[in-house]
Amino acid sequence: MDFRRELEKRTEQAEQITMRLLPEAEGHAATVMDAMRYSVGAGGKRLRPVMMYAAYELCGGKGNSVEYFMAALEMIHNYSLVHDDLPEMDNDELRRGVPTTHIKYGAGMAVLAGDGLLNYAYETAMKAFVQAKGAEREGCIDALTLLAGKAGIYGMVGGQCLDVEAEEKELSLSQEQLLYVYENKTAALLQAALGCGAALAGTDMAAKNRADLEKAGYDLGIAFQLQDDILDIESTTEELGKPVGSDERNGKKTYVSYLGMEGAKREQARLSEEAAALVRALATDGSERAENAKEFLAELIEQLVNRKK
Amino acid sequence: MDFRRELEKRTEQAEQITMRLLPEAEGHAATVMDAMRYSVGAGGKRLRPVMMYAAYELCGGKGNSVEYFMAALEMIHNYSLVHDDLPEMDNDELRRGVPTTHIKYGAGMAVLAGDGLLNYAYETAMKAFVQAKGAEREGCIDALTLLAGKAGIYGMVGGQCLDVEAEEKELSLSQEQLLYVYENKTAALLQAALGCGAALAGTDMAAKNRADLEKAGYDLGIAFQLQDDILDIESTTEELGKPVGSDERNGKKTYVSYLGMEGAKREQARLSEEAAALVRALATDGSERAENAKEFLAELIEQLVNRKK
Repeated sequence: MDFRRELEKRTEQAEQITMRLLPEAEGHAATVMDAMRYSVGAGGKRLRPVMMYAAYELCGGKGNSVEYFMAALEMIHNYSLVHDDLPEMDNDELRRGVPTTHIKYGAGMAVLAGDGLLNYAYETAMKAFVQAKGAEREGCIDALTLLAGKAGIYGMVGGQCLDVEAEEKELSLSQEQLLYVYENKTAALLQAALGCGAALAGTDMAAKNRADLEKAGYDLGIAFQLQDDILDIESTTEELGKPVGSDERNGKKTYVSYLGMEGAKREQARLSEEAAALVRALATDGSERAENAKEFLAELIEQLVNRKK
Repeated sequence: MDFRRELEKRTEQAEQITMRLLPEAEGHAATVMDAMRYSVGAGGKRLRPVMMYAAYELCGGKGNSVEYFMAALEMIHNYSLVHDDLPEMDNDELRRGVPTTHIKYGAGMAVLAGDGLLNYAYETAMKAFVQAKGAEREGCIDALTLLAGKAGIYGMVGGQCLDVEAEEKELSLSQEQLLYVYENKTAALLQAALGCGAALAGTDMAAKNRADLEKAGYDLGIAFQLQDDILDIESTTEELGKPVGSDERNGKKTYVSYLGMEGAKREQARLSEEAAALVRALATDGSERAENAKEFLAELIEQLVNRKK
């Protein structure tokens, strides 16, 4: 497999699906729609929808319900970035090298753009229900339950809560509390990505693989967050597309504070390798499509260890 | 019917269902859960879930899916208030006579509490799916599609967008633009309340009544917003539980600016009466429960004309 080309193709596919399913900016509320398109359209790796689709193919999924869920997940990811960047949160002015939504549209409109994206994620997922029948509909219900759970207070919002509290009250988070933040702020949506792919596929293979896929998403999420901590120290503003050293400036504890730089890198590599191994061991129907998706997903996880942004 | 007693009983029921289905504050993310409970628990008329349940009874609904949707709608209503009160939005420090969520918990946590409530609304509605079978499940899908649509950029968030834009850019809204704001910011969730009640009931009666119920919700929403405009001028801070005259101080156009106080009152009365008449003309199965719900709903709409807060 030419991994780079495969990644490019799959990223482009996720990009197109997401942008196509976002509303066009029109009518009296054009500004909030424009702000939604701006924040999602500013780029990003589209990692979550790419992973969802690979898991879906790996499990032998057919149909197009998955497209609505890919877009929904990417909207949820992006709403969280828009709100996270707000002045009362991380107060970041740049993301992916361009002005954040509140810098471009004002803080009030950024709050609404985030709300609009979160709500539109559910509107978009509901579109999958209308056309799905029988087992596919059960898969939609399963997937939406998982997605909503991982996005909320027992998932991403829960992780952000402790993160924000630590900053506002200048708390020094314990390693256990940090792990809670990483599990929920970052790993939860990656678990949702792989778990929804399996749930929507709805095959016997999917039922067998789902727990391991979610575990791989969990491992990758923690590894991903460790990489963020590492890059915040070792990268450059140009490479990262946002200011480096912000954690340290803000007095934030990270895993590097507890494990040291080398320890953090070792733990990050261990988790990435475990995640890739879990994926390589998954069952497929032996088709080229499923095997190709499996190989891609495993390589993707390995490559993320070496990312620079 | 002793309307006051009936209203009290139904409000208490909606209150209990909503608070029971909210998360208990516990674990590492207890603060955001506490902020969610604070903002919802601070009171309010519980008008939307009360209306949903009355429409559900009126249409002969059986089962308890409706409870999850009553709570979900009330969570959506309350998340919108939390975000609306934020410093970058209306910057209100008091609501229902007590400090707003961002005053009590800080603006960052208020953003998260709103996000948590919106997302938890969908988590809560999804709980109805798990136990529903056959026609009841179809009703859940219908209701969730309606709810999500009315809450988002083609509904409430859309209305808020133009409202916020008017304030930030000091635009003078035309009467048509104001109507758009009222239709979406306020009427949309009242339409959702009555429409979801019918969708969840899933009876033949519900199919017959749904369009008229949604129209009644629309009329009531516009009337309700007109009443807000009127009260902002004529009420007192003590009665209203929040500062009066804020529209005028902020240079905001309202319907009173276009129709004058008497014209606004006439239009408000006309819409309320039309809404009540629509409800009184609805078909029921003739049972005491359905007839009672119909009488209650019609009286509720009429009473709202005379509210002081």
